[in-house]
Amino acid sequence: MDYKDDKLNDIVVSLRRVKEKAPLVHNITNYVTVNDCANIILACGGSPIMADDLNEVEDITSICNSLVINIGTLNESTILSMIKAGKKSNELNHPVILDPVGIGASKFRMYTVSKLLEEVHFSVIRGNASEIKVIYKGDDTTTDIDINSDKQSTSYNTNELIGMAKQLSQRTGAIIVITGEIDIITNGEKVYKIKNGNPMMGKIKGTGCMLSAMMGAFCGASKSSKQLEAVTTSVSMMGLAGEYAYAKVLENQRGMSSFRMHVIESISKMDEPMLLTGAKIECY
Amino acid sequence: MDYKDDKLNDIVVSLRRVKEKAPLVHNITNYVTVNDCANIILACGGSPIMADDLNEVEDITSICNSLVINIGTLNESTILSMIKAGKKSNELNHPVILDPVGIGASKFRMYTVSKLLEEVHFSVIRGNASEIKVIYKGDDTTTDIDINSDKQSTSYNTNELIGMAKQLSQRTGAIIVITGEIDIITNGEKVYKIKNGNPMMGKIKGTGCMLSAMMGAFCGASKSSKQLEAVTTSVSMMGLAGEYAYAKVLENQRGMSSFRMHVIESISKMDEPMLLTGAKIECY
Amino acid sequence: MDYKDDKLNDIVVSLRRVKEKAPLVHNITNYVTVNDCANIILACGGSPIMADDLNEVEDITSICNSLVINIGTLNESTILSMIKAGKKSNELNHPVILDPVGIGASKFRMYTVSKLLEEVHFSVIRGNASEIKVIYKGDDTTTDIDINSDKQSTSYNTNELIGMAKQLSQRTGAIIVITGEIDIITNGEKVYKIKNGNPMMGKIKGTGCMLSAMMGAFCGASKSSKQLEAVTTSVSMMGLAGEYAYAKVLENQRGMSSFRMHVIESISKMDEPMLLTGAKIECY
Repeated sequence: MDYKDDKLNDIVVSLRRVKEKAPLVHNITNYVTVNDCANIILACGGSPIMADDLNEVEDITSICNSLVINIGTLNESTILSMIKAGKKSNELNHPVILDPVGIGASKFRMYTVSKLLEEVHFSVIRGNASEIKVIYKGDDTTTDIDINSDKQSTSYNTNELIGMAKQLSQRTGAIIVITGEIDIITNGEKVYKIKNGNPMMGKIKGTGCMLSAMMGAFCGASKSSKQLEAVTTSVSMMGLAGEYAYAKVLENQRGMSSFRMHVIESISKMDEPMLLTGAKIECY
Repeated sequence: MDYKDDKLNDIVVSLRRVKEKAPLVHNITNYVTVNDCANIILACGGSPIMADDLNEVEDITSICNSLVINIGTLNESTILSMIKAGKKSNELNHPVILDPVGIGASKFRMYTVSKLLEEVHFSVIRGNASEIKVIYKGDDTTTDIDINSDKQSTSYNTNELIGMAKQLSQRTGAIIVITGEIDIITNGEKVYKIKNGNPMMGKIKGTGCMLSAMMGAFCGASKSSKQLEAVTTSVSMMGLAGEYAYAKVLENQRGMSSFRMHVIESISKMDEPMLLTGAKIECY
Repeated sequence: MDYKDDKLNDIVVSLRRVKEKAPLVHNITNYVTVNDCANIILACGGSPIMADDLNEVEDITSICNSLVINIGTLNESTILSMIKAGKKSNELNHPVILDPVGIGASKFRMYTVSKLLEEVHFSVIRGNASEIKVIYKGDDTTTDIDINSDKQSTSYNTNELIGMAKQLSQRTGAIIVITGEIDIITNGEKVYKIKNGNPMMGKIKGTGCMLSAMMGAFCGASKSSKQLEAVTTSVSMMGLAGEYAYAKVLENQRGMSSFRMHVIESISKMDEPMLLTGAKIECY
């Protein structure tokens, strides 16, 4: 089934709401890509706050519109902050996004995500195929660690991934997003496939983290009944920004560092016509 | 009153002293904009050290020329380090700069700033209008949280802000800097207004943090009798860098990511003639 | 003695192995330059993981090919993680690289490095002349703190530095790298001198940290019998990237911020012919 006009309307509305509402996004995230996350939230029209101390996460999350939890450089004390902020956000009906970065890389990350899933209801869980598979299987025996890539492992095919995502969505109540060559988004019933993107996105650090951060803005700005569309729009927009950035890099004979800059700039310049023309979204 | 020749001379001397002295600046700061802070200190001619462990902050601050405390990603253990480093800097007569990032966003930030103001004498406190107002009022009941903008709230007019800044300066003994469309700098008696800058500065993360970091270099290099002039120079120079950066961005049809880079580069290229020609400073 | 054909072959092999093996590099590093470190590891062909919590460093280091320990923003809890990860890496025969950033700046850094040298066997220790001298002398009485520069202090001459490096290498069993105008690399017997580089590298934050991170990739990809050559290749390649980046900056009339970007991009574009043509390596 092709993407129909009413769906296109959802995209337009999702983007417009971010620009109009300028949602505040609370991030408990890693110190590696944090600056890129802050800047991409600003670029898409949101406003970022980074705060992870147990003494303030409830206050911070209360003035925000959404919460993004990223376990990239996890440490013992911030786990408590993640749970506290997550519970508070649930109480306030704020959307909460989970990015289980490198979950397969240590028992500690595995344990933390299990704990988070027990204590907090997530609106969205976004990872690459390997990360989502670890959560799906619920153990850390995978050897398929794919810590730095948003590429979908070749050991999966799209239908397998869709099946896994749907089941995980039904089990957790979260929208599941698997990013890769083809991105998959599902709420357990509807499935969106997105074919935007460029392979160079896997060559720089942080495109996954940035997308999760941007989802914070999109979910924070959208109605609760339109979260799936908001998430889908953010995924397509990120991929499209990668396409634009790659064109710029080629044009200027540049490389990966400027690519990252162009991704963020493309997000900041993305308007409705660009998004509508460029979005490659299929709905099932 | 227009800016007179002797004032212009102060600007030249302030800039020259940074280049000649290459002051070491100790930063206890947030992990979001820390890299930009380090690079802008290098760009203006200083040398940055970031260190926040309680075991070393006294040693570090002792070999430095100034200390910058930024509460952007506050955590419980670094508060003790801030106080310890602040007291040591006071003992050594090093200038200490406070950036109360997002103070209105949590009771924890409010409490921390109160505590810091009790324990440490600050040479400079820099914030946007909302942040300075929270300190001025001494409570956290404000709903005017403006965590990501250096724009002056429209609910203030310049005269109100000047009055508030003067009183806060008299109460704390610190030079108060309110950055916004018009920047205000006062030591409780003299007031400088600066009209440099570009709206794009509010669209990237960290221009406020970078300015506070750069003040560390300017104050660390200047005589204690010339701190007000050093601070004023740094504010004008940052605004001017924003103007140059914006021109570059337009020229190259680029966006916010390259803007940030051009701000830092403009600082690194700023010489006396550029600064003298471009500075828009009024003295009262 | 000039650099001979078999040595050139070592360079080619070192670079090729990084591209082929795509080594995973575990970094316990500072929050100032961490993003640049991640991106330069990706740029040269490796894959970075940053993780510093005591609960996971053994797991993380076990799936990696090498470990880089950087004390730039040291804190009490990560010291234990450094030791734990270091011991595990030793057990697994993974190369471990130490970057003693600013060791002369505090007793705490001095103490930490002593402790690390007692508990962990390092394959490589990289610093500027001041930093290596502090380790060599084993005390913190130096006043020659050169925390932000990879420039070799003028108070040293190359022969003095070589003598010091050789002795320290024999004492620690580590390859010693002193970066500066001329880089020195020794395993206690053989000595390499490298004359690549550009003075602008000292004007941006993080070239030293980035080089240490990149050594993680080169050592992680090389045979244990070829570590010296792998390290030498990474040092020459970093210097050469500085030369290319400087040419780009001049060509585009740009400054230090774009220089950093061009350094990382030059690393990502560096191929065997470029490296062979540009490397300025002398062997003794």
